[in-house]
Amino acid sequence: MNATYIDEIGKHEGEEVTLRGWLYNKRSSGKLHFLQVRDGTGTIQCVVFKKEVPAEVFALADHIAQESSIVVRGTVRADDRAPLGYEVGVTGLELVGESTDYPITPKEHGVAFLLDHRHLWVRSSRQHAVLRIRSEITHACRRYFDERGFVLFDSPILTPAACEGTTTLFETPYFDETAYLTQSGQLYLEAGALAFGKAYCFGPTFRAEKSKTRRHLMEFWMVEPEVAYMDLAGDMDLAEDFVEYVVGSVVANRAHELAVLERDVDRLKSVRKPFPRISYEQALDLLHDKGIEVAWGADFGAEEETAISESFDRPVLVHRYPAECKAFYMKNDPDNEKLALCVDMLAPEGYGEIIGGGQREDDWQTLKDKIAAHDLPQEAFAWYLDLRRYGSVPHAGFGMGIERVVAWICGLHHVRETIPFPRMLERLTP
Amino acid sequence: MNATYIDEIGKHEGEEVTLRGWLYNKRSSGKLHFLQVRDGTGTIQCVVFKKEVPAEVFALADHIAQESSIVVRGTVRADDRAPLGYEVGVTGLELVGESTDYPITPKEHGVAFLLDHRHLWVRSSRQHAVLRIRSEITHACRRYFDERGFVLFDSPILTPAACEGTTTLFETPYFDETAYLTQSGQLYLEAGALAFGKAYCFGPTFRAEKSKTRRHLMEFWMVEPEVAYMDLAGDMDLAEDFVEYVVGSVVANRAHELAVLERDVDRLKSVRKPFPRISYEQALDLLHDKGIEVAWGADFGAEEETAISESFDRPVLVHRYPAECKAFYMKNDPDNEKLALCVDMLAPEGYGEIIGGGQREDDWQTLKDKIAAHDLPQEAFAWYLDLRRYGSVPHAGFGMGIERVVAWICGLHHVRETIPFPRMLERLTP
Repeated sequence: MNATYIDEIGKHEGEEVTLRGWLYNKRSSGKLHFLQVRDGTGTIQCVVFKKEVPAEVFALADHIAQESSIVVRGTVRADDRAPLGYEVGVTGLELVGESTDYPITPKEHGVAFLLDHRHLWVRSSRQHAVLRIRSEITHACRRYFDERGFVLFDSPILTPAACEGTTTLFETPYFDETAYLTQSGQLYLEAGALAFGKAYCFGPTFRAEKSKTRRHLMEFWMVEPEVAYMDLAGDMDLAEDFVEYVVGSVVANRAHELAVLERDVDRLKSVRKPFPRISYEQALDLLHDKGIEVAWGADFGAEEETAISESFDRPVLVHRYPAECKAFYMKNDPDNEKLALCVDMLAPEGYGEIIGGGQREDDWQTLKDKIAAHDLPQEAFAWYLDLRRYGSVPHAGFGMGIERVVAWICGLHHVRETIPFPRMLERLTP
Repeated sequence: MNATYIDEIGKHEGEEVTLRGWLYNKRSSGKLHFLQVRDGTGTIQCVVFKKEVPAEVFALADHIAQESSIVVRGTVRADDRAPLGYEVGVTGLELVGESTDYPITPKEHGVAFLLDHRHLWVRSSRQHAVLRIRSEITHACRRYFDERGFVLFDSPILTPAACEGTTTLFETPYFDETAYLTQSGQLYLEAGALAFGKAYCFGPTFRAEKSKTRRHLMEFWMVEPEVAYMDLAGDMDLAEDFVEYVVGSVVANRAHELAVLERDVDRLKSVRKPFPRISYEQALDLLHDKGIEVAWGADFGAEEETAISESFDRPVLVHRYPAECKAFYMKNDPDNEKLALCVDMLAPEGYGEIIGGGQREDDWQTLKDKIAAHDLPQEAFAWYLDLRRYGSVPHAGFGMGIERVVAWICGLHHVRETIPFPRMLERLTP
């Protein structure tokens, strides 16, 4: 008999099925065992009734412990009290693999212990919910760009030069040279946008920041679109439309997982266009009104971002920061050369910056001067300057860090649960 | 007026449109300029007729050189001779960015020169075709697994230990430790399969192999599925179904690009299930009949793979290699302990191995002994052994290297054109 996945159990009401999975939990009375069986697609209650099974099956049900792998045969019957609407009346049970003293018990464990056992922790229902939502967010991001004619243009991970300074770079010997792990695919993606009009990349990025915060991982995934002939206004429109789509996809397709996480879904449902847009200077005023003084020219930290975002029920776009606190490739605002044509999107509920982007400097001489002013190696950026030498066009884009978006949508305090195996300052294992 | 993308030009027949793009090529006579304009979504002929435009527009059309960025206004008219079925009668023309002495001309260039100018080379029609097919292959891979209930489970890139030996690893200081760049997400993905039943990962992988062959890159992308309760037979069924789907998607959705590459599409159309399946020992016999002698126990190299694949018009699955030439995590064949329950898929037309996979060792003690026999650090694999300690199940999967598949489907001699910025033994730039 072919096995049935639990997420398709509803198609088999009244039939005998075979389930292959693991024992998630068990309750027993003298004559009954209620086995909570998970198979990765869902969890279902399987009822072993002493009078209805051979003695050895009942004994096995009595014996098996949490996370034992088992094959269950039984009949699917409707049960209004069950989360899936069904339960299974067991007729047969087979042990595949023992599980003795499974380390993660229903009791509370410390985070360090759970992270040490991340390879097992990912089996728990809460982690399932988070990682399924991560999977959905990734699909939604790709679907959004694929359906709108963006060409996937994978940027390289191993790069010869730093995108934004060398202090936070991981580096590796590369035969006779040194390679750095990418912090952003943007520079390469600009070549893609000028070739394909609309391009995106989506891959892992790396920052060797000696910081232990709830918002930082050393290795994180970033999705980055880049569009030729797009300006800052178009970039903000794109970012807004994109984030509305991604949040909407999770609300529509992952209601069960959001419920497991006890997420306030109304908060997510309010993430609709238009998002508020304020300039850096308006943000300074807003902070001032809240008693937070920031000197003109300084970038915002976590405290400021949280204070700004708390004024809005949806993400807020903060645009035109001082050029001096932004990267060399940002185009200056022709209306005020001290400002950069950039935008950050801050998530609501204190989740901080989820998007950073803007319009790129498209004038060859200006960019060359900026590279020199930032003490960057001219030679390493010769190819990047070429993009302004041969048919330069206005262009813009942004990057969105996936883990922060997962944390926000799931309502998690810390990004460490948003990726299967987080890499942090003191954690490279398992 | 909003700009129109060339791939949607057919919706605007008879209308005046604005195109924003680059000059791809130009032919001129005294009274006429035929501008081939590309915008990343397509290329269209724009006709500048002296009598129909202001003198300065005609003069500008005369002046502009290859890859100048331009905005073209004109009327869309049907033209049966045009590849898209339309051309544009120009009424206005504006120069956005000059392009003087564009380095890649229609003449022949050497490969080193083209790779040095990869950031511009990606604008050419042939590279467009290859990278659009790469994009389609990636989408098809993800769509296949997403639609079949596999959970995306991103494996880490930075890992504390080697998956298959340390000689071909890139390494980076990781604060007080050393991290290695992953060669395969498989081991971590096994944790995902035991959590989610069906999981896949898809990311960049790295091999620091000091080899210069047409089949190797230092940085390449790999898609890897892993399924709990699946054996070798199921693994072969999955690999076969998957590859048929991916090739079929390209044939269905990228006919234009295959034509640009002059690919023999009939060869791709014959990639239909069932694929031939032969054992390692049958492969030895086949090679013997072709005059190639391989000693039992040796792995196949490029020459042998090509010889085997030439016997078939579609990919061939070669299964049950000697355990001694395969990785430690392979499960031995219970019918013959000298064999591993593994499978390689060899592409036709001499493109070599595109898939490697198999059933994993699921017995704790056996795996522990194998780790010791391979002189691998026991402590680093403690978490991996845990997967066999707590509810072990039979499980299997495979990895497919994207670049080789792109090379095969596109009919390319060398993998260097299959990725936007290839990383090779002597190439880390641009």
